[in-house]
Amino acid sequence: MATQVLIMVNQPSQDAAPHDPASPAFTVVDPSAPQISALDLGLNRGDGIFESVSVGRGRPQALEHHLRRFVKSAATLELPTPDVDVWREVILAAIAELDDTDEAWVKTVLTRGIEGDGRPTGFAYATTAPDFTAVRRDGIAVVMLDRGYRHDIEVTSPWLLGGAKTLSYAVNLAVKREAARRGADDVIFVSSDGFVLEGPNSTVVYRVGDRLLTPGTGLGILDGTTQANVFRYGESVGLQTGFHLATPDELRAADALWLVSSVRLAAPVRELDGAPFPMDVEFSAGMNEYLRSVEE
Amino acid sequence: MATQVLIMVNQPSQDAAPHDPASPAFTVVDPSAPQISALDLGLNRGDGIFESVSVGRGRPQALEHHLRRFVKSAATLELPTPDVDVWREVILAAIAELDDTDEAWVKTVLTRGIEGDGRPTGFAYATTAPDFTAVRRDGIAVVMLDRGYRHDIEVTSPWLLGGAKTLSYAVNLAVKREAARRGADDVIFVSSDGFVLEGPNSTVVYRVGDRLLTPGTGLGILDGTTQANVFRYGESVGLQTGFHLATPDELRAADALWLVSSVRLAAPVRELDGAPFPMDVEFSAGMNEYLRSVEE
Repeated sequence: MATQVLIMVNQPSQDAAPHDPASPAFTVVDPSAPQISALDLGLNRGDGIFESVSVGRGRPQALEHHLRRFVKSAATLELPTPDVDVWREVILAAIAELDDTDEAWVKTVLTRGIEGDGRPTGFAYATTAPDFTAVRRDGIAVVMLDRGYRHDIEVTSPWLLGGAKTLSYAVNLAVKREAARRGADDVIFVSSDGFVLEGPNSTVVYRVGDRLLTPGTGLGILDGTTQANVFRYGESVGLQTGFHLATPDELRAADALWLVSSVRLAAPVRELDGAPFPMDVEFSAGMNEYLRSVEE
Repeated sequence: MATQVLIMVNQPSQDAAPHDPASPAFTVVDPSAPQISALDLGLNRGDGIFESVSVGRGRPQALEHHLRRFVKSAATLELPTPDVDVWREVILAAIAELDDTDEAWVKTVLTRGIEGDGRPTGFAYATTAPDFTAVRRDGIAVVMLDRGYRHDIEVTSPWLLGGAKTLSYAVNLAVKREAARRGADDVIFVSSDGFVLEGPNSTVVYRVGDRLLTPGTGLGILDGTTQANVFRYGESVGLQTGFHLATPDELRAADALWLVSSVRLAAPVRELDGAPFPMDVEFSAGMNEYLRSVEE
């Protein structure tokens, strides 16, 4: 048992050769030892994909949704198709190796491997999650920042890899530094043509009256695994749910607003661009309780 | 002597602690062995920077320009400042370890390292270059593709990291696959508001009469190290040189067009978006001969 687990995957895709035909499907390795080649295209070019799966009370949440999105991201990057049966087993094995903990997460990574080698690199890393109790209750300060892209690039310019969860996340980290400079905790991206997109690692969900809304798919943003469960919860308490392409002004006029993601779950926004934002404390609590208990 | 050399840098920045205070400044290691942690942010987030330095007849070309750009990229990403004296030494050591060869290249990489560790990861990889003789003479087929960004994002939205040479290059590879699908070899990015930007790993240079032009800096594109030398060559043969924010139509009307970069040097465009493009064979040859001989 451990607080950090690293598993190297021998054959992450049936479309490519295993790293070692004599080795098992995957191997638990020392997370403090170097395991990756300096020549790996995942490192040199951010040329790979990932998923972060939340683990609640020892069970992976939205596992099949994450695996489907992993396969979709691979297709967008024209990577060999992940073998979901192997990856499912790897995720469960990583969880089994972890210390018993209330909340944890597993990250799966697939890269194109070493140039010309033809064998993708696959690994999973699992660790215990920080305590997000206060954040889920007290909320976060958020700023809206230009993503640079129009809202329709996924349709017009698929080579920009909109909607894929790639390892090329330098901008997603840079916007968090910009948020910190502005005294905020997180970011909501706005398209260059003025529409609300997503957070750098979360989905935007907001409530207007009895409607729970999110920007939807096809906007060069991720198909939110947690957002899908948030909608299930909303419907269970009588809200309507739907997709809406919103402007920043529409977002500012919402009754409540959350950034939802796999590990932090639903973080209510208490401040938007420096102005106080209303919080729906009861709904936030119910939603997070639901998200911590779902297994689908 | 070898055809591949990998050097790990113990203390890539004076602003951060060395990896091992008892070790030398850098160590030549086995390039076929894993050297990088699976937890490195360079791998997991494309959170790092690189430079590719061309080596002609055993000498690094435009070395100081590359080192300056490496420092500038680090500043844009708020990475610890690279120690250029160490990196210069590392590059020269890598070249010294390489087999004697007419053309080679050295890549330098600096990542943020393991989250929370505070020590950036630095390494240099050197290898012999492929033979680009035919490409420099016969030219390449190029397509223009939308970069998704306006031409002014470097000014309006610095958090998009325009002008920095980051490890988050998944899009730069994806556009090459799109080019291949269109029967082309390479790409010229066009801004969402209709201006010519750069190639995914090259600078656009074109000739109109006796003027040699390039889009210039401040457009969220790289300050071309090779382009600077191309301009020196152009001036030495009597051309005027300058920066111009061009439209795709202006580019199509040019007398000759090149994608210039450190390792491939000047590749003349023989076909643009499927239509034949005029080549200036004599000027290409002279320019490449110059680029292969310069040491600044």
